[in-house]
Amino acid sequence: MTAARFAVAAIGNAIVDIIGRCDDAFLAKHGAAKGSMRLVDAQTIETLYSEMGPGIEISGGSAANTMVGIASFGGKAAFIGKVAGDEFGRIFRHDIGAAGVAFDTAPVNDKAPTSRSLILVTPDGERTMNTFLGISTDLDHGEVDAATVTGAEVVYLEGYLFDQPQAKAAFRQAVSLANAAGRTVALTLSDGFCVDRHRTEFLELIRSGVGILFANEAEITSLYQTANFDEAARRAAADTKLAVLTRSAKGSLILADGKAHEIPVDPVAEAVDTTGAGDLYAAGFLYGLTASRDLATAGRLGSLAAAEIISHVGARPQTNLGELARARGLLS
Amino acid sequence: MTAARFAVAAIGNAIVDIIGRCDDAFLAKHGAAKGSMRLVDAQTIETLYSEMGPGIEISGGSAANTMVGIASFGGKAAFIGKVAGDEFGRIFRHDIGAAGVAFDTAPVNDKAPTSRSLILVTPDGERTMNTFLGISTDLDHGEVDAATVTGAEVVYLEGYLFDQPQAKAAFRQAVSLANAAGRTVALTLSDGFCVDRHRTEFLELIRSGVGILFANEAEITSLYQTANFDEAARRAAADTKLAVLTRSAKGSLILADGKAHEIPVDPVAEAVDTTGAGDLYAAGFLYGLTASRDLATAGRLGSLAAAEIISHVGARPQTNLGELARARGLLS
Repeated sequence: MTAARFAVAAIGNAIVDIIGRCDDAFLAKHGAAKGSMRLVDAQTIETLYSEMGPGIEISGGSAANTMVGIASFGGKAAFIGKVAGDEFGRIFRHDIGAAGVAFDTAPVNDKAPTSRSLILVTPDGERTMNTFLGISTDLDHGEVDAATVTGAEVVYLEGYLFDQPQAKAAFRQAVSLANAAGRTVALTLSDGFCVDRHRTEFLELIRSGVGILFANEAEITSLYQTANFDEAARRAAADTKLAVLTRSAKGSLILADGKAHEIPVDPVAEAVDTTGAGDLYAAGFLYGLTASRDLATAGRLGSLAAAEIISHVGARPQTNLGELARARGLLS
Repeated sequence: MTAARFAVAAIGNAIVDIIGRCDDAFLAKHGAAKGSMRLVDAQTIETLYSEMGPGIEISGGSAANTMVGIASFGGKAAFIGKVAGDEFGRIFRHDIGAAGVAFDTAPVNDKAPTSRSLILVTPDGERTMNTFLGISTDLDHGEVDAATVTGAEVVYLEGYLFDQPQAKAAFRQAVSLANAAGRTVALTLSDGFCVDRHRTEFLELIRSGVGILFANEAEITSLYQTANFDEAARRAAADTKLAVLTRSAKGSLILADGKAHEIPVDPVAEAVDTTGAGDLYAAGFLYGLTASRDLATAGRLGSLAAAEIISHVGARPQTNLGELARARGLLS
């Protein structure tokens, strides 16, 4: 196995977030379940946008956020995802590059606009996402750059992409390439409803070559169709080498080699916006893992990064996470 | 004089801000004087953007920020300014409308893109602005809607627009229309360098029909070519009915009817980003004035709004300013 150019390379949706505030009544009026992510069509996102309050635009995308987090810790990260040649595509490209993440997927014009997600933040800090998937779901295996995938210690796959047949094919190709090169494949389940739509195929993918599985409580219980978290956790530990399960305020659980590590959350003075908490937990964990830290330290780095992201609006860190971790004694 | 539809109508640049962080060395390398606003061409803004860190996009524009502030206090505000039919133009239109400000200027395509300003925030909270004036300076008198101008108690003119001949003509037309309708014209000088470029014409405009003049220390001393603030203030008081002079941490000075009102600043726990402090001071002041408050109260509303804007990134309020003022006992 040759030395890796990247600690982690991700394949995910390239999305610009439009973040605005709203109250619970606005969500109810528009049939959006608080705290969920739903896919919406062009008409729905226009209606929501026209009726919501002022917004701010910040680059996002779940796996893209994770790669930016890894770079902020000082790790080498790459991203594969699809944007159009429009203003939002330019914003996405600038921001991920400026954050230190390698991003070389060529823009595609005249097919669909760059994907965007309307994130409505209620006064309690909860976020409800309404995502219009434009060009980013159009990713196919031709865009999965083999040198990037085989040149990373960990290849990180974003479950959200799994809704389109060509993206599924791209994922399977990435798993084959990575496994053949002796690399580790990580998968985040992304969303309970997405798991529900593709349960069988997700399980096949996991059992066929995923070494690290990230999921939150809703996702892992959806995957194994049980209301019992402990049972879902046991089954995840049997299906994959390393299961990393996040549980919001209850912290996280890391299962590997028959052992369980319970990781507490990092306290936050005020939960301003929970967008990206799971993405940044994965960033801290994967940075720690690829920097040869033990699992408990990797988990604590995940909690640290999640706490930073919750303390402000937007899912990209506003503080250098490496410095933050050193100040806290988690890295030297 | 018929009843006014709007408390204030503004004519200004329609700009989307791209806000990022940088250190002092970055500013020095790119020849940008900390705390200043400079106009840059398309090439320079591209270079700065490609070398700066990740950004967030928030609607801005000096007079537009002021109108949003007035709406946040509960006042009726309108804005006249020019955008293109691109994504940034759509963002600007959405945000100002969603904030409750009437905005009916039609977009113009294929001439120039929507204006944008790269705002570089240094660790001390100072902001350095690099503005690429696209379509917004192209405003001409045909776009100054007479019904809007004559339908507002106060017509507020943004000095930044004064660099283009057609915009100067638009300003003069607005002054004539407003004065003929018995309305008050307010002018903000916007920038010391802008004053330097157009001193004689600014003085003519002020003496010919500006009832309220807003300026900070650098602008008013530039206008009267004196290093002595007190002298500049005396001359401003002679040239206009109401002079409102802001002095950063030293508070503000309101001069009218031979009297001077000194207004303290509102304390801020942490100055995160000073972008928009002057714009929001003007919002509080103009709201107070058009809501028939006395000058000292109007000034304190200005200080309150400026403090809110300094406490976070971006030049549009994140808190309802009317509620904030009521909580502080400044409005009932």
